[in-house]
Amino acid sequence: MSTHTLEEILHPQSIAVAGASSSTATQGYGFTYHLLEYGFKGKIYPVNPRYQEVLGLKTYPSIRDIPGSVDYVISAVPASAVLNMLEDCSQKGVKCVHLFTGRFTETGRRESAELEQEILKQARKSGIRLIGPNCMGVYYPKEGISFGYDLPKESGSVGLASQSGGGAAIFVELAALRGIRFSKVISYGNALDFNECDYLNYFSQDPETKIILMYVEGVRDGERFFDALRQAAATKPVIVLKGGRGESGTRATASHTASLAGSMKIWETMVTQAGAIPARSQDEMMDLAVSFYFLPPIPGPRVGIVGGGGGPSVLAADECEEAGLDVIPLPADIREEVRSRGVPIWDWLGNPADTSIMGDSGFTSNDMLLLMARNQNFDLLIANIHEVALSVKEGTTLRRREEVKEYIKMKKESSKPLMIVISDKSLGTKGYSHWRWKLTAEVRTSFMKANIPFYPTHERAANSARTLIDYYQRRK
Amino acid sequence: MSTHTLEEILHPQSIAVAGASSSTATQGYGFTYHLLEYGFKGKIYPVNPRYQEVLGLKTYPSIRDIPGSVDYVISAVPASAVLNMLEDCSQKGVKCVHLFTGRFTETGRRESAELEQEILKQARKSGIRLIGPNCMGVYYPKEGISFGYDLPKESGSVGLASQSGGGAAIFVELAALRGIRFSKVISYGNALDFNECDYLNYFSQDPETKIILMYVEGVRDGERFFDALRQAAATKPVIVLKGGRGESGTRATASHTASLAGSMKIWETMVTQAGAIPARSQDEMMDLAVSFYFLPPIPGPRVGIVGGGGGPSVLAADECEEAGLDVIPLPADIREEVRSRGVPIWDWLGNPADTSIMGDSGFTSNDMLLLMARNQNFDLLIANIHEVALSVKEGTTLRRREEVKEYIKMKKESSKPLMIVISDKSLGTKGYSHWRWKLTAEVRTSFMKANIPFYPTHERAANSARTLIDYYQRRK
Repeated sequence: MSTHTLEEILHPQSIAVAGASSSTATQGYGFTYHLLEYGFKGKIYPVNPRYQEVLGLKTYPSIRDIPGSVDYVISAVPASAVLNMLEDCSQKGVKCVHLFTGRFTETGRRESAELEQEILKQARKSGIRLIGPNCMGVYYPKEGISFGYDLPKESGSVGLASQSGGGAAIFVELAALRGIRFSKVISYGNALDFNECDYLNYFSQDPETKIILMYVEGVRDGERFFDALRQAAATKPVIVLKGGRGESGTRATASHTASLAGSMKIWETMVTQAGAIPARSQDEMMDLAVSFYFLPPIPGPRVGIVGGGGGPSVLAADECEEAGLDVIPLPADIREEVRSRGVPIWDWLGNPADTSIMGDSGFTSNDMLLLMARNQNFDLLIANIHEVALSVKEGTTLRRREEVKEYIKMKKESSKPLMIVISDKSLGTKGYSHWRWKLTAEVRTSFMKANIPFYPTHERAANSARTLIDYYQRRK
Repeated sequence: MSTHTLEEILHPQSIAVAGASSSTATQGYGFTYHLLEYGFKGKIYPVNPRYQEVLGLKTYPSIRDIPGSVDYVISAVPASAVLNMLEDCSQKGVKCVHLFTGRFTETGRRESAELEQEILKQARKSGIRLIGPNCMGVYYPKEGISFGYDLPKESGSVGLASQSGGGAAIFVELAALRGIRFSKVISYGNALDFNECDYLNYFSQDPETKIILMYVEGVRDGERFFDALRQAAATKPVIVLKGGRGESGTRATASHTASLAGSMKIWETMVTQAGAIPARSQDEMMDLAVSFYFLPPIPGPRVGIVGGGGGPSVLAADECEEAGLDVIPLPADIREEVRSRGVPIWDWLGNPADTSIMGDSGFTSNDMLLLMARNQNFDLLIANIHEVALSVKEGTTLRRREEVKEYIKMKKESSKPLMIVISDKSLGTKGYSHWRWKLTAEVRTSFMKANIPFYPTHERAANSARTLIDYYQRRK
């Protein structure tokens, strides 16, 4: 178990929600609701002088009025009420306050910045640690703590520290749809007390966390951050997405979490030198997280590609090659094997293996994938589940399910990294109930259950693969 | 009306499907089914000696046995049967044969390549034009001709010539989900008779086509192609996706449509010099098609961004700037206007306008979008419909619907280009029936109906915008 200060803080016996509310439009409602909904095992104390009861829980006028001890406080009170609340927290021996409360330095106003500093001073005096301010705080499904309505209740092994709360919620939601589950997520906003280095240190020591993700807008102390990054990256994969890379993003960063953003090139060089992986977008961070989460180390760039028709195969090869993978010609021994089985298209088949020519040849994508899996010339395999409106429901459904079953079986038999490509569909209302879409959703679910990662395009799969190959080569 | 040879060919009075079949697994079934399903108005003649009837239609042993005249033939017979069938076609005065039939040059076998050449020779002798071989042929919803099961029945103004049939079907299906409808799509495979230049010429003359898309793996005659491209690009936007860009893609291209791919850089330079737009992926081609389809010319790069929370706003600014847009600071007159309305966060708001700070300020994303729409400092606007699990169903639904209504109203009032960002979700079975997803689908449908384009990320919206800006600037 970790001995980090945050370890105790993240396992509270009791949580008070200051500014709890019955109005569903507020986060004072949300934070209370989540504790109930996600099954927080300790005591829950809503605090608000205007309510007797919130969500069926007895509600206290102030933190001071709570009968038992309080370990952790979630603050949804206005900025002007924080100092008083901290007084109460101090009297109750509270260990940590998560300040959802915002409108401090990020407003650009002097008096708000001064108030923020006073809050820090008072917290330090009372020995109270702060998460935030101006953040969503903690999502720790195992402990029953959450900041979102539709985030998974199951735990996983990805830890995320994010300077953005909304961004973290979107990320968790979308990543969950690709099979990722989280150990814990901490949205930390203005990083007044605990900052990016503390969260990084914590995650690097946390046995529940195998992969660390960070969304950072700015760092307080570059030297300390890169030291922390180096240490963390020595223990597990660390992927860092930087917000505020350009001029306008830097401006937006200042009004979001009052951070100072720096030059992007220097940043990426330092992140890479620290042994961590820089990401350029949420999508890229998600692809990388999915890859580290589900794949074994990828030993090299030689890729086998199956499952697309003619044009999609050509484009898949292009995209893989442009990402730095090596789409090798079909090895001679595979060709001989196919010939020996009497497959009439043995001399025509290649890598990528074009499904549209297989037709009635008695040879399928899955046969090819199996041959590639057993062949030492390939370092990884990419299989395309292509959605084509060229066949009828029954046949498509049957073939697709068979294909998925076979791919999953192959994955169990072979240790070779396997990535699946299934395109995203920007569905409207009409398409929503279409069997083709339902079938795609079913296929995705099957792959998730089988711990096989999928990607919306070959480009994204290949870019992720290349990054992982480089990562593992550097670590050798 | 166009005087191009293809114009008459694409308006047949009668179509025979050679190799029609009752087996749903075959395209001989599919092509017949589509003519019925999409409402082809002329005569439909299934041809197959093994059937009396296909899909309720009287079926003839050979084309020669058809009582009336036959304008157009779709061939799903084996390669070895094509020469005989062409004899029959010649006797019936058939004008054009679409050879779905494949297994010619693309197999890499000499005898197949020789057969292909014999077919061409015989067709020329009989005055029969050929589409294909090795292709899906024509999707022309207005005429009731289709090659896919779930392609839209409504017509639009995008024309696509694609060397890949499966690729074309996927593209039409996915593009339809983003609101695009097609005038006609021609999948042309090995381009034995009609080739990329003919289709390009035809689309450039076709009054039903306002935007031309091409998927090309190789061109027979570079000089003629770039001449045709120059002519076409002078009349309407032409977007060209090249398959077979690298070494492996080139190899795949040879076994797909037996084309010779060339050096990518030279290709892109020539496409741009011809006044057309090179695309690097299906996604990019789709984003560009959506942009040309729905947007007025974008006069410059100064973008206003609304609708995201803190982190997403920062990343949106970064991505827009990296794509070459100019995320200008909020103009002083807008700030003054907001101040004069007594909005307490007037000095904090910026561009992007962070929704997460608006809260109870009485000021919304929509208010900001309206101010930006009326302000001459902005050339285009991007609004984010962000999916955050931070609020309850009722509130989210209400706010989202209100927002969409207001955005649509704004679009009617202002001529300023408006792009929407809504993230794609790789849904599994469980998420499929979730209200959040249904709401997103509803939102997309509303925007499609209002002719407002949407994109899955700011990066993709911004890249498209930049390409359009350059396109319109070059044309000045």
